[in-house]
Amino acid sequence: MDEQRLRNLLTDLSEGRAQVDEVVRHLRAMPFEDLGYAKVDHHRALRTGFPEVVLCDSKTPEQVAGIFEALSKSAEVVLGTRADASRFEAVNARLPEAVYHQAGRIIQVGTPTVDEGVGPCLIVSAGTSDIAVAEEAALVVEATGCVADRLYDVGVAGLHRLLQHHSRLATAKVIIVVAGMEGALASVVGGLVSQPVIAVPTSVGYGASFGGLAALLSMLNTCASGVVVVNIDNGFGAGYFSAMLCRQIAGR
Amino acid sequence: MDEQRLRNLLTDLSEGRAQVDEVVRHLRAMPFEDLGYAKVDHHRALRTGFPEVVLCDSKTPEQVAGIFEALSKSAEVVLGTRADASRFEAVNARLPEAVYHQAGRIIQVGTPTVDEGVGPCLIVSAGTSDIAVAEEAALVVEATGCVADRLYDVGVAGLHRLLQHHSRLATAKVIIVVAGMEGALASVVGGLVSQPVIAVPTSVGYGASFGGLAALLSMLNTCASGVVVVNIDNGFGAGYFSAMLCRQIAGR
Amino acid sequence: MDEQRLRNLLTDLSEGRAQVDEVVRHLRAMPFEDLGYAKVDHHRALRTGFPEVVLCDSKTPEQVAGIFEALSKSAEVVLGTRADASRFEAVNARLPEAVYHQAGRIIQVGTPTVDEGVGPCLIVSAGTSDIAVAEEAALVVEATGCVADRLYDVGVAGLHRLLQHHSRLATAKVIIVVAGMEGALASVVGGLVSQPVIAVPTSVGYGASFGGLAALLSMLNTCASGVVVVNIDNGFGAGYFSAMLCRQIAGR
Amino acid sequence: MDEQRLRNLLTDLSEGRAQVDEVVRHLRAMPFEDLGYAKVDHHRALRTGFPEVVLCDSKTPEQVAGIFEALSKSAEVVLGTRADASRFEAVNARLPEAVYHQAGRIIQVGTPTVDEGVGPCLIVSAGTSDIAVAEEAALVVEATGCVADRLYDVGVAGLHRLLQHHSRLATAKVIIVVAGMEGALASVVGGLVSQPVIAVPTSVGYGASFGGLAALLSMLNTCASGVVVVNIDNGFGAGYFSAMLCRQIAGR
Amino acid sequence: MDEQRLRNLLTDLSEGRAQVDEVVRHLRAMPFEDLGYAKVDHHRALRTGFPEVVLCDSKTPEQVAGIFEALSKSAEVVLGTRADASRFEAVNARLPEAVYHQAGRIIQVGTPTVDEGVGPCLIVSAGTSDIAVAEEAALVVEATGCVADRLYDVGVAGLHRLLQHHSRLATAKVIIVVAGMEGALASVVGGLVSQPVIAVPTSVGYGASFGGLAALLSMLNTCASGVVVVNIDNGFGAGYFSAMLCRQIAGR
Amino acid sequence: MDEQRLRNLLTDLSEGRAQVDEVVRHLRAMPFEDLGYAKVDHHRALRTGFPEVVLCDSKTPEQVAGIFEALSKSAEVVLGTRADASRFEAVNARLPEAVYHQAGRIIQVGTPTVDEGVGPCLIVSAGTSDIAVAEEAALVVEATGCVADRLYDVGVAGLHRLLQHHSRLATAKVIIVVAGMEGALASVVGGLVSQPVIAVPTSVGYGASFGGLAALLSMLNTCASGVVVVNIDNGFGAGYFSAMLCRQIAGR
Amino acid sequence: MDEQRLRNLLTDLSEGRAQVDEVVRHLRAMPFEDLGYAKVDHHRALRTGFPEVVLCDSKTPEQVAGIFEALSKSAEVVLGTRADASRFEAVNARLPEAVYHQAGRIIQVGTPTVDEGVGPCLIVSAGTSDIAVAEEAALVVEATGCVADRLYDVGVAGLHRLLQHHSRLATAKVIIVVAGMEGALASVVGGLVSQPVIAVPTSVGYGASFGGLAALLSMLNTCASGVVVVNIDNGFGAGYFSAMLCRQIAGR
Amino acid sequence: MDEQRLRNLLTDLSEGRAQVDEVVRHLRAMPFEDLGYAKVDHHRALRTGFPEVVLCDSKTPEQVAGIFEALSKSAEVVLGTRADASRFEAVNARLPEAVYHQAGRIIQVGTPTVDEGVGPCLIVSAGTSDIAVAEEAALVVEATGCVADRLYDVGVAGLHRLLQHHSRLATAKVIIVVAGMEGALASVVGGLVSQPVIAVPTSVGYGASFGGLAALLSMLNTCASGVVVVNIDNGFGAGYFSAMLCRQIAGR
Repeated sequence: MDEQRLRNLLTDLSEGRAQVDEVVRHLRAMPFEDLGYAKVDHHRALRTGFPEVVLCDSKTPEQVAGIFEALSKSAEVVLGTRADASRFEAVNARLPEAVYHQAGRIIQVGTPTVDEGVGPCLIVSAGTSDIAVAEEAALVVEATGCVADRLYDVGVAGLHRLLQHHSRLATAKVIIVVAGMEGALASVVGGLVSQPVIAVPTSVGYGASFGGLAALLSMLNTCASGVVVVNIDNGFGAGYFSAMLCRQIAGR
Repeated sequence: MDEQRLRNLLTDLSEGRAQVDEVVRHLRAMPFEDLGYAKVDHHRALRTGFPEVVLCDSKTPEQVAGIFEALSKSAEVVLGTRADASRFEAVNARLPEAVYHQAGRIIQVGTPTVDEGVGPCLIVSAGTSDIAVAEEAALVVEATGCVADRLYDVGVAGLHRLLQHHSRLATAKVIIVVAGMEGALASVVGGLVSQPVIAVPTSVGYGASFGGLAALLSMLNTCASGVVVVNIDNGFGAGYFSAMLCRQIAGR
Repeated sequence: MDEQRLRNLLTDLSEGRAQVDEVVRHLRAMPFEDLGYAKVDHHRALRTGFPEVVLCDSKTPEQVAGIFEALSKSAEVVLGTRADASRFEAVNARLPEAVYHQAGRIIQVGTPTVDEGVGPCLIVSAGTSDIAVAEEAALVVEATGCVADRLYDVGVAGLHRLLQHHSRLATAKVIIVVAGMEGALASVVGGLVSQPVIAVPTSVGYGASFGGLAALLSMLNTCASGVVVVNIDNGFGAGYFSAMLCRQIAGR
Repeated sequence: MDEQRLRNLLTDLSEGRAQVDEVVRHLRAMPFEDLGYAKVDHHRALRTGFPEVVLCDSKTPEQVAGIFEALSKSAEVVLGTRADASRFEAVNARLPEAVYHQAGRIIQVGTPTVDEGVGPCLIVSAGTSDIAVAEEAALVVEATGCVADRLYDVGVAGLHRLLQHHSRLATAKVIIVVAGMEGALASVVGGLVSQPVIAVPTSVGYGASFGGLAALLSMLNTCASGVVVVNIDNGFGAGYFSAMLCRQIAGR
Repeated sequence: MDEQRLRNLLTDLSEGRAQVDEVVRHLRAMPFEDLGYAKVDHHRALRTGFPEVVLCDSKTPEQVAGIFEALSKSAEVVLGTRADASRFEAVNARLPEAVYHQAGRIIQVGTPTVDEGVGPCLIVSAGTSDIAVAEEAALVVEATGCVADRLYDVGVAGLHRLLQHHSRLATAKVIIVVAGMEGALASVVGGLVSQPVIAVPTSVGYGASFGGLAALLSMLNTCASGVVVVNIDNGFGAGYFSAMLCRQIAGR
Repeated sequence: MDEQRLRNLLTDLSEGRAQVDEVVRHLRAMPFEDLGYAKVDHHRALRTGFPEVVLCDSKTPEQVAGIFEALSKSAEVVLGTRADASRFEAVNARLPEAVYHQAGRIIQVGTPTVDEGVGPCLIVSAGTSDIAVAEEAALVVEATGCVADRLYDVGVAGLHRLLQHHSRLATAKVIIVVAGMEGALASVVGGLVSQPVIAVPTSVGYGASFGGLAALLSMLNTCASGVVVVNIDNGFGAGYFSAMLCRQIAGR
Repeated sequence: MDEQRLRNLLTDLSEGRAQVDEVVRHLRAMPFEDLGYAKVDHHRALRTGFPEVVLCDSKTPEQVAGIFEALSKSAEVVLGTRADASRFEAVNARLPEAVYHQAGRIIQVGTPTVDEGVGPCLIVSAGTSDIAVAEEAALVVEATGCVADRLYDVGVAGLHRLLQHHSRLATAKVIIVVAGMEGALASVVGGLVSQPVIAVPTSVGYGASFGGLAALLSMLNTCASGVVVVNIDNGFGAGYFSAMLCRQIAGR
Repeated sequence: MDEQRLRNLLTDLSEGRAQVDEVVRHLRAMPFEDLGYAKVDHHRALRTGFPEVVLCDSKTPEQVAGIFEALSKSAEVVLGTRADASRFEAVNARLPEAVYHQAGRIIQVGTPTVDEGVGPCLIVSAGTSDIAVAEEAALVVEATGCVADRLYDVGVAGLHRLLQHHSRLATAKVIIVVAGMEGALASVVGGLVSQPVIAVPTSVGYGASFGGLAALLSMLNTCASGVVVVNIDNGFGAGYFSAMLCRQIAGR
């Protein structure tokens, strides 16, 4: 309709029923978003190749299922993060092709086409309790078509476990480090490599970890250069950001 | 220039050198801000009558003086908040008409025309140490053309001091309450009146006041209805908001 | 009884059984509240038109139902905030006309007469998870007889969604902004409009949102003028304050 | 037994079987507590008249019942604080005379003899949600033989409710103020009276009350002289301290 | 003047120029504070014997001197707390009889008459760095006419230093415990005695003492009964409260 | 395989098929962990005599049982900390010799050989609610072959209870102090003894204990020398560290 | 020397004075770092092109000058961050070619060769007070040879200022957002673009900004995807990380 | 004198001038400390060999000098911690043999006899800014007669710097780790060694390090076993504790 209004106005001008000054004045008064914001949307559309993502834990199973059904009609891949079994079952009842990645608490519909030339993004995690967040990151990376490489349970209490895999650290394009408790792994990895490191503090810990605050502050204060941080337990954010980087690096 | 581009385009259309479809396409591609944002600015211009305000403490005396000189050419009133004597002297050297309100740490250039029908806004403060913030609020109210009524040093430790002035509480259109320490005055005033109360916590206090945090939390948790809060020591913000209300209420 | 004591005293004086000095001394000793505080109550009575409000979540269903029954005898509208289904059922058993607004968790008895000349108060919310708090605010606004306008799910991650509704921003008398996570929407709205903005941080968020603290601090530190803040999740407080403003502006 | 050891030693000395030097040496080597700490205990015994108190919520119902059974054999009054119904039932099964004060969550065995000359201790509370803590304080006061006077639901949002009871404020020997949310009532009462005020912050509140922290900080920062503070929700501590004061004042 | 208004009204009544109903109506309309609040003041006047107190550190030397000059005309004793040498010099220039208690940072004008039957109040401090706060408390106690007994530098790191003075602990009427760092002394003293203990956390400490927060939290969480807390470094508050208690206990 | 690569290389050198320079170059390029990290492992192996430890509460009963089964094949003693009854039952079903220490929430398989010459390590706890953490520490000490001496319920509110056991304090090699609430016991014990003290804050407490933060800060700020701190509720960490010390002292 | 030890060992093997098994055993016992860590260093050397960086504010002017002198012998570019004028003067006295970038508080020696194909990295800042941090980031980006594009003073209080520069947002390879106060700019930019956004909270603010905490929490909780965070005021870290990304994207 | 009182009493008993009951009664009434607490002191005397230590920064230069003069008469070694040059000069004026260790801010009088068989205690620090705290620890260790081994500037950003010194890690009896910023070094060292690790967080850092809080929380949450923590910047405490351990291990 807004376009119609615009067309009428311009037709009036072209057919002599309106003057330039008058049209300029009308254009100024017209809600700008009707003209300009397609461009904003267009820019966002550049992120094609990225999956649609649904944050499940604040929605009911029925709501989640409904959203999946709607999105899966147009999107190649739809992911549901922080999803429990009950939400998966609701989705699965409508979309039998849905898959549940229990470790990462992710529902997935559609199979991404992994582009072997994009990445790898290495996901490093400190302890077994950090795997849920690490898997969330890894699955988001893969759903975006990037290669994900998983290196789990290599916390600094046994440093040799990490150092044994030095070549995987060296060949990654981007590295995600997932750690709770004191979060020291981010600094250690950041000191060993020359690639960008995305640190994800987790809420894993006891006592004075204060729900991940200790790891978060530790990572923000890292003495290693080239380390940035996302919110506590935000595996999705780290995976999404890393996938953006890998695709840019690969020229996709 | 952007307007020139627009005019050229429309002239081409009106003179048959361009088609409607083509112009629509051009308009879509044109940076939207060239058209639409005048409207945004226009809306902001509705706040005429408000003074220009300079936050002084993060600028050098020379910078402050320069900004005052520039703004005073077009604005009826220019205020400088959080200003010490050295900054006033720098302004005064260039603008001899500048006035320094020491209690509120405010430099003022230009005399606002107070509209007796707007307000009064009552500014209530708890202790003598809160007066700097209260005066900042009161001077901002006055610079906006509203009537300010000051009621200072009526903290809850001597409740009768406040209650003696019940009629001033009753006739105010909007009430600003400025208090440090435990900030209880906001709840007490909020419980006595039926007008909107803007609470300003101050950093006045000792020990566990933690720079005004105690008063801030107290005011946010008020059991009285009709009380809202601004940042610690933000006399400017409270005065600005209250002046907006008074003018709206007065239909200005 | 207190009045009786007063009358006896004055009658003694008028009939010569007491002296002026003696009566003055008695009046001083008489509990002041028996005389003066009717005035305080009278002032509070000026807020007629406001509904009676019951905070439900710290009361049992039976207590809630009893209070509703008592209040509904004299009040035009009674609201129960933070109410779950069990509390509604208890109220409904006694008052069949009770209505449950599930989205805003509010029980309502009585129909407010909305005064089309008061408001509109625009309630803007960032995400779908913020709607419970936004609805609490909107329903309180409506129960006070003001016009409420709802603009939901226009968070800053997709700024064009907000900007598309610029005219609704422009025509509102007062704007309530409800946002969790980083709470940036309050600053963005505050920068776009010239009306008073009431910001409500919500506890929606993950990790370092710390139950709404991130949004609260963000809103208190807003760089936009004309923004004030209420407690986390305090939709009621924002709605009540905004209704006060709208009625004052409309001269009600 | 320790006394026996001591007597044997001294008898040996008095009967010539030991020398002074030898006894001195023995006394030095003897665990000092066998001699001296009876005095410490004796001093503590001065607090006779105080009930035995059991903190119930960290113990199982069986443990609570066992402790009550043991203590009730020698103590005039036994109180169990923070007790739910299940713990009361366990106690009641063994001690049919046990009474459950539901509002204050206290189990009581034995009837204290209230001494009308001790107190009154006035317990003032802000809202209905604070009554559990206020009752805990009041019952501890009474269990200690002091007169308790209850003045509930007189929060600062309706100040006249408090002021109406000025004479009860004036005649109390000690005043306990129980308040959550912003805790302003402690300052208001402290400003009205000349007796000692014991402030109890409660965890009642929402959002930025942070489990009672807002009220705690507010009370610690009170601008009124003569106000001291106990831990959040610590009705027991306030009652116990106040009873100590009342008894001292009464010369008991 | 208010009294004059009242007298006129009553004279009219006594002389038949007014009716009872009319006078009742006038009295209701008269600002209540003109009648009732003398009583409030009267109650506060019960605290006679207490010194006037000036908080010096937020005032200029000239302001402090002016206030001292004014107050010393009517008050027996005037104290200035948190006073440095420059403020004392300003006072001393006008009032040569002024005395400066450097250890407690207190200016004193006038000599209190100590009543040997009131107290003693024992002030216990943990370390030498806590003495400034302890002296502030002790001087306030003495200025109120109570006997103060000082027991300094008896921190828990050398427990025998405290235990050696058991008899002074035993004979005190009220005990103030002043401690920084971990604040454990309050619990230890509270466990040894049966009198009321007023705990004053100080900002003495390093690192994770966070300006006295560690000691404050420690004291609030004391496992000893009969301990209450004032704000960090609030020697004045503790001294004032304790003097109130001592006077009540002594029947003054 | 890495060793094989190394052997091939060296064999080539020894048999003349390679030169020294060439081998040096290869060794530099060879992943270092293939050579050196056995040494790291070897050092860690020095901690033989220490039990294998499984943190149970973040694992399912089945996972815990599987890990126990695997570890018990090679380890003399396997401990499971923070284990509830359901996890014990799962372990017990596979390993009938498993024992459940309910007080310390520990599952144990295998009997450590206590070396009477190592220790004793004295575990001191303040209240009955701290026993779970204290027992966790004590059982870890014993599982490491050290003598554990338990001294429970000796909080500072009744100081004589602690002082009565002075000789046990005096003969311990290392002392663990477990305390919640204000955590003062650590400072008191630290002031009485000359041995190392390991302080364990517990989350036992109410209100402003903030989940053990009060005790943690208190212990970190101790005025006693020779006191170190572990995380809140970290009985395992304190026991492990203390056992290391006892063994070093005993020359094991 | 370590190499000499290695060579001797291998020479012995090659000359028959040692056996393969013996050499393997020796190699295992040899400190691993003598062999392997050159590789670690080698990896770090991949970051050539990056300047040497000296953090100046914790060093004396003399120390800073000495380090610059030493580093400038081998490094193409040496930067000194958080440097004041006195430190620059000390450096300049030894190295006359040193340049001082006052706005970013950076000393620079050597001229980086900017590679026009790398970047641009767009640095966006909210207010004029954020420019010091923004310039620190921009200068680090340039010193690494990347193109930096500066877009300053485009805070959300005047959103159109940002939107006017949409094309610069669109063409940047990486975007750094520097903002204090409520930090909302990071979310707004993150919502407008599809490139990686590095958010830098600054300590600019008042009251409840708590030294940048408000902006930090806001940025961590961003509702926009593709945003990561560095420490408060860490312009260096953001610039370094962004330069790494730009070079990777450009295939350098 | 107390002993004299005791001897008189016992002599009376032995000579028939007193009865057993009477003496028992007297002993009970006698201040216990006169008997028993020599034992406490005696135990503390076991820590001979430890230097006297003066915390200088809260005392004036004159006070520090006076205390040094007094202590140096009887103590072999006197240390003054947190001492600046002015305090050293005051001490040096009275005690010419005084030495100032600038790096560790320590004044030392007297030369400790280092016992080569005690220790070594290895002090590891992360960055050059941590050296002040590390040196404080090292000098305390040496003043206690233990061997101190310093390994500075081996932070985790360059892990190979630490690993190169593996043999020094391996031969230490006790290891102190001093680190600011994220404090990760404590976990890394704790994972590499089997000896006790004492972690000292420092206040070195920027932004969200919050005065050492980030490092403190990181160290408390370490995933490595065998790590304990002291207060922020508490080099003295770590050195003192470690010296106790080294001496115990060496059987001193």
